[in-house]
Amino acid sequence: MRRFVADKTRNLVRRASTCSPTCPVSPRPHHPPSLLSQPTSPPFSSSSPSHPSSITSPLRFLTAAALHPLSFPASPNSMASNYSTTPVTLQSVNPKVLKCEYAVRGEIVTLAQKLEQDLKQNPDSHPFDEIIYCNIGNPQSLGQQPITFFREVLALCDHPAILDRSETQGLFSADAIERAFQILDQIPGRATGAYSHSQGIKGLRETIAAGIAERDGFPADPNDIFLTDGASPAVHMMMQLLIRSEKDGILCPIPQYPLYSASIALHGGTLVPYYLDEATGWGLEISELKKQLETAKSNGVCVRALVVINPGNPTGQVLAEDNQCEIVEFCKNEGLVLLADEVYQENIYVPDKQFHSFKKVSRSMGYGEKNISLVSFQSVSKGYYGECGKRGGYMEVTGFSPEIREQIYKVASVNLCSNISGQILASLVMNPPKVGDESYESYTGEKDGILSSLAKRAKKGIGMELPQMFPVVMQNGITQ
Amino acid sequence: MRRFVADKTRNLVRRASTCSPTCPVSPRPHHPPSLLSQPTSPPFSSSSPSHPSSITSPLRFLTAAALHPLSFPASPNSMASNYSTTPVTLQSVNPKVLKCEYAVRGEIVTLAQKLEQDLKQNPDSHPFDEIIYCNIGNPQSLGQQPITFFREVLALCDHPAILDRSETQGLFSADAIERAFQILDQIPGRATGAYSHSQGIKGLRETIAAGIAERDGFPADPNDIFLTDGASPAVHMMMQLLIRSEKDGILCPIPQYPLYSASIALHGGTLVPYYLDEATGWGLEISELKKQLETAKSNGVCVRALVVINPGNPTGQVLAEDNQCEIVEFCKNEGLVLLADEVYQENIYVPDKQFHSFKKVSRSMGYGEKNISLVSFQSVSKGYYGECGKRGGYMEVTGFSPEIREQIYKVASVNLCSNISGQILASLVMNPPKVGDESYESYTGEKDGILSSLAKRAKKGIGMELPQMFPVVMQNGITQ
Repeated sequence: MRRFVADKTRNLVRRASTCSPTCPVSPRPHHPPSLLSQPTSPPFSSSSPSHPSSITSPLRFLTAAALHPLSFPASPNSMASNYSTTPVTLQSVNPKVLKCEYAVRGEIVTLAQKLEQDLKQNPDSHPFDEIIYCNIGNPQSLGQQPITFFREVLALCDHPAILDRSETQGLFSADAIERAFQILDQIPGRATGAYSHSQGIKGLRETIAAGIAERDGFPADPNDIFLTDGASPAVHMMMQLLIRSEKDGILCPIPQYPLYSASIALHGGTLVPYYLDEATGWGLEISELKKQLETAKSNGVCVRALVVINPGNPTGQVLAEDNQCEIVEFCKNEGLVLLADEVYQENIYVPDKQFHSFKKVSRSMGYGEKNISLVSFQSVSKGYYGECGKRGGYMEVTGFSPEIREQIYKVASVNLCSNISGQILASLVMNPPKVGDESYESYTGEKDGILSSLAKRAKKGIGMELPQMFPVVMQNGITQ
Repeated sequence: MRRFVADKTRNLVRRASTCSPTCPVSPRPHHPPSLLSQPTSPPFSSSSPSHPSSITSPLRFLTAAALHPLSFPASPNSMASNYSTTPVTLQSVNPKVLKCEYAVRGEIVTLAQKLEQDLKQNPDSHPFDEIIYCNIGNPQSLGQQPITFFREVLALCDHPAILDRSETQGLFSADAIERAFQILDQIPGRATGAYSHSQGIKGLRETIAAGIAERDGFPADPNDIFLTDGASPAVHMMMQLLIRSEKDGILCPIPQYPLYSASIALHGGTLVPYYLDEATGWGLEISELKKQLETAKSNGVCVRALVVINPGNPTGQVLAEDNQCEIVEFCKNEGLVLLADEVYQENIYVPDKQFHSFKKVSRSMGYGEKNISLVSFQSVSKGYYGECGKRGGYMEVTGFSPEIREQIYKVASVNLCSNISGQILASLVMNPPKVGDESYESYTGEKDGILSSLAKRAKKGIGMELPQMFPVVMQNGITQ
């Protein structure tokens, strides 16, 4: 018997069960409380109610730690005192780091780890024998298989020496071999072990831009693409660019993916929360955005950007196109950068909803490069691919002046480049096998299998179009 | 005919030719000038002298951009004004980002790009037909081949489905297949596409710790290892931990690798320079450290850490063991964290010098976990492996209290984990094939070939034990 654990679900549940204007996933306030319009509660209060919602019936405990367990023992004072002569203490560490909280930390994590320890010492100590950590979307850790074509190409690019060998023809599909050749030809010196351009290999960015253009029906420029090690570093980069002090605020949805609160805290800014409305399927109301913006302003906070997660994480909502138009208009009028987290663009499981990128929506409205500052984040970790460990992703940056683009480029340069395998994978997910390619049939079979499995589980769960981590959690305690 | 370009070399040259106490690689002061003891000059002053040193005879121009070209056009005011309604301007961007400078940017870059443009428009415009960018150690971009065993293992881990196929036996060495099986067994669910533990896969950290213990003769703890996407994110992580404001200073060598000045600027701290002494082979004098520390203190700067790059980058010096003991003693007495950049540990080309890690030195002195706070950085980008594009690396963190370790862990968690291929590669470089393994002979042949080629070029260059990027630059304008 297994017991499942997921912080975000619990937060969702608490929000659902209380409907109070608290900020369940937000960290402890990392700014003077007076700056904020609404009281926030500690993220993992021990006073939370039990879980009455039907959503949670198969769930008992939540944790964030399994993939990120605390490796270090708890630190009683006696232990800490042994380190009294070492130079860094809780008093002298950067307070922004202290203020940062991440959902993988917290009370539930600690509880799950304690239960795990109990089980190690005595397998009969609880009516279950294993803790499964579902705190974060990590499908391959739960048995989802990678797409064969993608892995073939990655392996061939890792070891191009075998490309011309006859045995390779028997082991790899013909189009994977051809694609590997194409990609290697795009890399100066065919050197997959060399640092690339700081934005990523130009040819791969061209492939990605073509994929975006095909998706949106509007052109995309390879010079707008910054390839990154997953979406997280891209988010950090934008926060670093925008946040000057705690007087700078970023509008973030609640519930949210805790990367945003963590990144804002690390960069010393203020999270300005806006609350999604469960009654309308976790909808985003412009009136709520306006209200929170005005309150923040009256508290002396200069709001720089709006984070929108679409499809939502953890809520799974898919914004309607007219709602997106309102959001674009709001950002344009208020002078906000629109930070569009679009990493779940392939995870929609209901026929009546469709993903529209904010770039497509803004271009459809007639707004171009000079009208709206928009950053779209994408990742190879989500979708049907679920390649979390490869750390591939990109951001498409539009509507910034050349001199600001140079600043973004400079920040990207400081870490030299993102990993080349992740870059290659990002190009593959934006340009998968096409009809007529040898791998097309197996590719679509694998893809459809994964998506229909996720859809089935989403339906079983709570009937919403949830991101993939939720279906995994929601199926009566059994993973595939 | 090729013309070579390398910022760092020029800086080295300028330092060599002027010997003035300027700060050639340091950015414009990112703190009130009064905080610093010595005047700093802009990094790429146009008033720099010509290059009289014999070191530079084959070099004419330096640039940083080829691998990191500016993708964006220069921005005349007329262009910028088109973006006058977009929300982010040079006036409203985070000033820390503006202050950050990175050697890949600057006057020389611009010049090289202009030359490149000239050549595109008219191939006869200059007495050379190509710009080769040698600003950063990137050996595979210049034709260095990766170690076959490493790439075999990476390819097999990327596509484990072929491990049991008979054709694989003919394509891959037996020990690579065996090693891939071993590594996959260490990964929960054999899922190379899953997020790992935030510090990296436990089994790989155990391998790395064993490699460190074998190198040093002192034990290493897998829980002290944080696997990172190259060394750069690890350096950022420590700067983030230590720097609270511009009143916090980090002692950095001049000349330095510009990651340090960039990272300190981005985190809003103060770079406290100490000058390496060319007369003693770019030696590190404790008296200089003390002088700079005292001056910084008298200017109100709280110095938190000392960065030592050993073997040196860009200078190539290798510290003597007794000098390292003095440095450890200095850090211990002054309450400084010792940040030891040891990424060039395999790049020593003279028989009378040997690399000793600071961990080994401090443990040899009898100092343990409670006496000295030490972080050692290592990367798969350097050494004979030169796998820059794989973005693998680690830091070994010792001498921090459990509660501070938790803070470091938390910061690592925010980006989830480093890329798994890079993690695997970091374990391979710390545990390469051994005598008796099928690949041993080819592995040592490839390794020795690369190292002797680097050594030859280092000797040809200026007779010092230089890091690998310099030999590449120094051979009369011809790369291999």
